[in-house]
Amino acid sequence: MKTPVGFLFSGVRAGIKPNRRDLALVFSETPCAAVGCFTANKAKAAPVLDAQSRLPSSKIHAVIINSGNANALTGPVGVQDVQSVCAAAAKALQIPADGVVSASTGVIGQRLPAHKIIAALPQLVEELRQEPEAAAEAIMTTDTRVKMAMRALSIGGKEVTLAAICKGSGMIAPELATMIAVVVTDCAIEPTALLPCLQDAMTDSFNSLTVDDDMSTNDVVFAMANGRAGNPPLAANSPELKAFASALADLCRELAREIAADGEGATKLIEVRIAGAPSPPIARDLARAVAGSNLVKAAVFGADPNWGRVLSAIGAKAGSRGYEVDPYRAAVAIQGVSVFDKEPLPHEPVQLRAKMRKPEVLVEVDLRGGTASATAWGCDLSYDYVKINADIPR
Amino acid sequence: MKTPVGFLFSGVRAGIKPNRRDLALVFSETPCAAVGCFTANKAKAAPVLDAQSRLPSSKIHAVIINSGNANALTGPVGVQDVQSVCAAAAKALQIPADGVVSASTGVIGQRLPAHKIIAALPQLVEELRQEPEAAAEAIMTTDTRVKMAMRALSIGGKEVTLAAICKGSGMIAPELATMIAVVVTDCAIEPTALLPCLQDAMTDSFNSLTVDDDMSTNDVVFAMANGRAGNPPLAANSPELKAFASALADLCRELAREIAADGEGATKLIEVRIAGAPSPPIARDLARAVAGSNLVKAAVFGADPNWGRVLSAIGAKAGSRGYEVDPYRAAVAIQGVSVFDKEPLPHEPVQLRAKMRKPEVLVEVDLRGGTASATAWGCDLSYDYVKINADIPR
Repeated sequence: MKTPVGFLFSGVRAGIKPNRRDLALVFSETPCAAVGCFTANKAKAAPVLDAQSRLPSSKIHAVIINSGNANALTGPVGVQDVQSVCAAAAKALQIPADGVVSASTGVIGQRLPAHKIIAALPQLVEELRQEPEAAAEAIMTTDTRVKMAMRALSIGGKEVTLAAICKGSGMIAPELATMIAVVVTDCAIEPTALLPCLQDAMTDSFNSLTVDDDMSTNDVVFAMANGRAGNPPLAANSPELKAFASALADLCRELAREIAADGEGATKLIEVRIAGAPSPPIARDLARAVAGSNLVKAAVFGADPNWGRVLSAIGAKAGSRGYEVDPYRAAVAIQGVSVFDKEPLPHEPVQLRAKMRKPEVLVEVDLRGGTASATAWGCDLSYDYVKINADIPR
Repeated sequence: MKTPVGFLFSGVRAGIKPNRRDLALVFSETPCAAVGCFTANKAKAAPVLDAQSRLPSSKIHAVIINSGNANALTGPVGVQDVQSVCAAAAKALQIPADGVVSASTGVIGQRLPAHKIIAALPQLVEELRQEPEAAAEAIMTTDTRVKMAMRALSIGGKEVTLAAICKGSGMIAPELATMIAVVVTDCAIEPTALLPCLQDAMTDSFNSLTVDDDMSTNDVVFAMANGRAGNPPLAANSPELKAFASALADLCRELAREIAADGEGATKLIEVRIAGAPSPPIARDLARAVAGSNLVKAAVFGADPNWGRVLSAIGAKAGSRGYEVDPYRAAVAIQGVSVFDKEPLPHEPVQLRAKMRKPEVLVEVDLRGGTASATAWGCDLSYDYVKINADIPR
């Protein structure tokens, strides 16, 4: 993966978790325009409270991320620990004290072992390099694979690159999740232009994602732009902003799909496409409702083309929110096979079940009640989801 | 169980399901004041649409209920099938044609085998008796035990009795569920007084219940009052209405707890008590959010006192709804053991885990943000929930 000019990454073992990389650093030699989108959870973790209070900024050089400890609901010492870590990282990187923000993911309610993180900083800085793999690995929790993506486009005659690392897995729900993503780009762009691009990109990516409808205390997506591509800086009114925003949205969508496919215990990605809805927010809400229904998720795990649960999930959400949606007028297809069109349609269940054993299951619903559409991503509900969340030794 | 005067029950095998009782009848010799509360799902099943259009009524003698087929999303023939069944049942019972309402539970989207139900009517009427067990058994789906409850009180010097049968199990969510309940009473009460009593009773019972947050197409609670107790009829302004309403609410709460404890795959009942909330609706919404969180449910299955997930669920709901609630000020106790009070509290994890292996797990949260409180019930998330919902042969 060719990464944006001027960014370096590293990931090391700080001893927060046994025998695994658990500390990551994303670093830009020059200061970045940096923005963030943060969890709406009222029990925000200490690093979220800290970063949210300091972004947007034009002075950020680095994001330091630990796994294995969420530093959430840890009381006032939690915020002090964040400040200690950020200050020590800035010193180790020889940058201004306010140049580092942080993120944490892991168990809630245990004090962050800041001393372990601080002790690992020399090695973390020493191992900085252009390849992001070690950093992507160090932020994993119950993820089973590293998650990275890249996009390139031309802006003002210059090649601009975007790259991202992220983690997902459990506690994944609309309006962010226990996910952490860092998007870096060498594009020159003002923070006031970067933030709305990131917010728009969120809507149809991370915010259309559900693993278990639990919104975590620690969700955060950072975007950092260091301008090293040399393009004329993008402002909120630049004509080429749209191309950048589109590349960013596409990058985030790829990561959202990867997170869904690697949801805790997941054996399959579920993609739900709603069409014919009265408005885009309704389309999104219904798509998420289907992707988040335990009954739909369990049916997909069992390769059961249970379209009744799909329409029931839509009807339940529509009923509780008062949406003008009529499931009786809908058409439903699963893996491209029409199973309902105002009434149940005959289909070959054995063949359809076989199609549902593929690693991606597509559910399409046309509500015939408008022109809006939306897509949401989720995963099936398996024995392993229960196992992971019931049995993890703490 | 002593049942209200003048009510008879039966349950037989109509052949909708193999080798199990699948057809129930609740019958009053004299006409009843009858009211219902119905699912808010927009994909309402045909029997729900029919009953909702005909209640409240003062002419209802009977409710006929089948399991094994939901008659939901079956198109116009679904409503015709309901009408055929109700008409044939009225004829068999020798009552007026509009004296029967119906309910169905089971698989969505398959045509109701009305002919099987009609063929079973002679036996269904023949076997009517005072004991409700056979009827309670016939409405079960994945329930593992029959659910009945009874209350008695004195009104106007007469003994008044309430009895109910219900079924629950999967697709259980706030604002009704795949549950069916029939409450019968010999109390003399006007429909205009009975309906608000039932609606109030719902709030802190069936509507505070969650197994999997899926609201079904078929949920319905009927209440029938035949006046045979001989008390002076209760009207909306009767002083003794409060005592009746309280008994009804208490009866419904007992059934709601039974449904939660027998949720699909459940090994434990979860009771969540929220105190110190800004308002009763917020307290209820937060209690349901905790009881419905997959992560909390999986932790309870694993006997893991994971209070972080409790506060995270509260914070997530509060954040998405904009409630003025601060998880950082809360106190949390699990099985009576304080685990968080503005900061994590030391506790003996082995002992607490042992307490969490009991069949009921109590989670108490004091938000210290008001005076409102609420209780919600749910169950743990087990391997068997996944198995039941992924593997059921259709």
